[in-house]
Amino acid sequence: MYKKIDYKKELEQASKSMILVHEPETLIKMIVRMIVNKVQVSHAGILLHDFEKDTYVLTVSKGDKGLKIPTGFARMDADNPMISFFRQRQDKQLFDDGAFVYEQGEKALNSKILSKNQKDVLKKVLYQMEILDAVACIPSYFRNDLLGVLILGNKKNGKKFAQDELDFFVALASDVAMAIRNAQLFEALAAELDKKQRLFIHTTIALAAAIEAKDRYTHGHTARVTNISLEITRKLESRHKLTFDEKFFEHLHIASLLHDIGKIGIPESILNKEGPLNETEAKRMQEHPLVGVNILQPIKELEDAILGVKYHHEKYDGSGYPEGLKGAQIPLIASIIAVADTFDAMTTDRPYRKALTKEEAVNEIKKQSGKQFNPQVAESFVELFQDNKI
Amino acid sequence: MYKKIDYKKELEQASKSMILVHEPETLIKMIVRMIVNKVQVSHAGILLHDFEKDTYVLTVSKGDKGLKIPTGFARMDADNPMISFFRQRQDKQLFDDGAFVYEQGEKALNSKILSKNQKDVLKKVLYQMEILDAVACIPSYFRNDLLGVLILGNKKNGKKFAQDELDFFVALASDVAMAIRNAQLFEALAAELDKKQRLFIHTTIALAAAIEAKDRYTHGHTARVTNISLEITRKLESRHKLTFDEKFFEHLHIASLLHDIGKIGIPESILNKEGPLNETEAKRMQEHPLVGVNILQPIKELEDAILGVKYHHEKYDGSGYPEGLKGAQIPLIASIIAVADTFDAMTTDRPYRKALTKEEAVNEIKKQSGKQFNPQVAESFVELFQDNKI
Repeated sequence: MYKKIDYKKELEQASKSMILVHEPETLIKMIVRMIVNKVQVSHAGILLHDFEKDTYVLTVSKGDKGLKIPTGFARMDADNPMISFFRQRQDKQLFDDGAFVYEQGEKALNSKILSKNQKDVLKKVLYQMEILDAVACIPSYFRNDLLGVLILGNKKNGKKFAQDELDFFVALASDVAMAIRNAQLFEALAAELDKKQRLFIHTTIALAAAIEAKDRYTHGHTARVTNISLEITRKLESRHKLTFDEKFFEHLHIASLLHDIGKIGIPESILNKEGPLNETEAKRMQEHPLVGVNILQPIKELEDAILGVKYHHEKYDGSGYPEGLKGAQIPLIASIIAVADTFDAMTTDRPYRKALTKEEAVNEIKKQSGKQFNPQVAESFVELFQDNKI
Repeated sequence: MYKKIDYKKELEQASKSMILVHEPETLIKMIVRMIVNKVQVSHAGILLHDFEKDTYVLTVSKGDKGLKIPTGFARMDADNPMISFFRQRQDKQLFDDGAFVYEQGEKALNSKILSKNQKDVLKKVLYQMEILDAVACIPSYFRNDLLGVLILGNKKNGKKFAQDELDFFVALASDVAMAIRNAQLFEALAAELDKKQRLFIHTTIALAAAIEAKDRYTHGHTARVTNISLEITRKLESRHKLTFDEKFFEHLHIASLLHDIGKIGIPESILNKEGPLNETEAKRMQEHPLVGVNILQPIKELEDAILGVKYHHEKYDGSGYPEGLKGAQIPLIASIIAVADTFDAMTTDRPYRKALTKEEAVNEIKKQSGKQFNPQVAESFVELFQDNKI
């Protein structure tokens, strides 16, 4: 008796804390494992509703070797006799919610109170239970939806399930169903969020690439700058014990993608000029960080990313533009993009000069550490090169 | 006795279905209202943990007039004696989880088993309870976090809470706490999703506007086409009994914003030419829908929106471009944008012609219904104009 109460308490406790487990698979495995271990049944499983396909899948099944049902084997559609029986709940004489026990069904089959039609239905349900080697099935509902069916094999001590045990399982199954439904909703929302994030990044990439295509000398520049910037940041973390949160990476990602967005405001005649720019043209070209800021300014959520766009042409010694910021005044996000951007520009052919080799460009960045570039960032970049990551 | 069991069942049932209520406020109001009504206490409330500010706020309070605590009044920081007492759970002699009853605390204060230090702590806790007019407090935890405190006033019949009642509230409070925590997590995720969606739309708007700025004659064109397209669709719903899901609106929104994105591939000399285009130039200009498709193609999630970009220059009679699609072959999303786009172009000054008045442009669209335009779409547009919505 003591032991019985014990497992109930444990399971109740578990079913409660399950609410905050938001991975359905983990949840179901947890509960089925507990039932098998604590209640000492030969095997147990859960048929879970797959809403999209409107089918019930044996999502997890645990138990003794041989008796365990192979998962994936059991997949019951809405027209399966057992599923439609539990879904319709029409015949209160055959099934009055709660637990459905094989032995009781068999008894009813041999009694005289049921009609031929009722017996036919019952036979089909029992046959499905035989396939699953189920001694009892406990359907669980949310509102009118059948969310799943808990399937129980024999008790190991050979005894029948007592009514209070079955009642307990009914309560438990309803908790589990609710927790699973909740977890599914959570998962769906998280997946949606993930999709939106990808959509946002991919659209930004596509539009940035389209804008870049106007500048005929910089094919692939944006993608390379983005990769190098992210790598530099990881290096800053591992070598310089700096820590950056997820947000920083996200802002850096966006800022790298959009750092040259302002070039859309520069006439094609300047962008594509075959030769060095004259003073007026150079001045116009130098407006691109601020043009970029103007474009992105209305987007409040991009506030931090905009710093990277605005200041990626500042220099550590204060000789850059647009504001001539110095040293620590320059936001780190901009200092990172500055190194990546300069390296990529140096290693790309331009109409009026040949590209440097990687080695030459890296040496130039080394030389400019503390002058043009933030020394920590420049150092991390050089280490990346030494690691063959660039 | 019967009545007691009755309210427990009801509350248990409610606390279970609460798991799937994902608005914390609704949830808390529901449960507190139930407690006040079913258990017949003078007032009840919940102090809920605000994780960001690490403070406990009296989120809801229900009860008899006068006895009800004004919400917002009670806001207890982590260093509040009662809160830190429930959070630390250090002195098992004073508090052993479960319910904390004012009267029992008072008794302990007068006993000789407690040290002076213990009594000082206890006094401060009891004083906090007096402020809240609380007969019993039931803290609830998830793992080691104090999620909230259920506050109970006097029972209306003047009796004390029995131990089994208190035990029941402890279990209930834990359910509620878990459901609230779950709802908070859900809300946070939903808010994140909303933020991402806005970020995506706003960034797309900004980049589309930047690209549009290259075409010096079309200032504000994209925004106007987007608004008109969405209005047409709402009109199609209300007048023509068509139904569109949220996805359609989202795709239309994106497609309208990006319909001219391909113009980024057209040289400025053509875009900004002061006068009609010659044949070569016109041909180049007509490439813009397919250039747009090329830009957006890599983004799988935009598949449906791309149809609007690709086909917004098709004509109902088959005389449009790029594919010369006819009638129902033209995706509706493109037919909608086509009307909005043409109307806006007609009502805007171009270097080689003056803008038409709205009336003239609407008449032109009427005339072209069934020729250039899908008749249902054109009709809806005309109705919008008659409603003064354009």
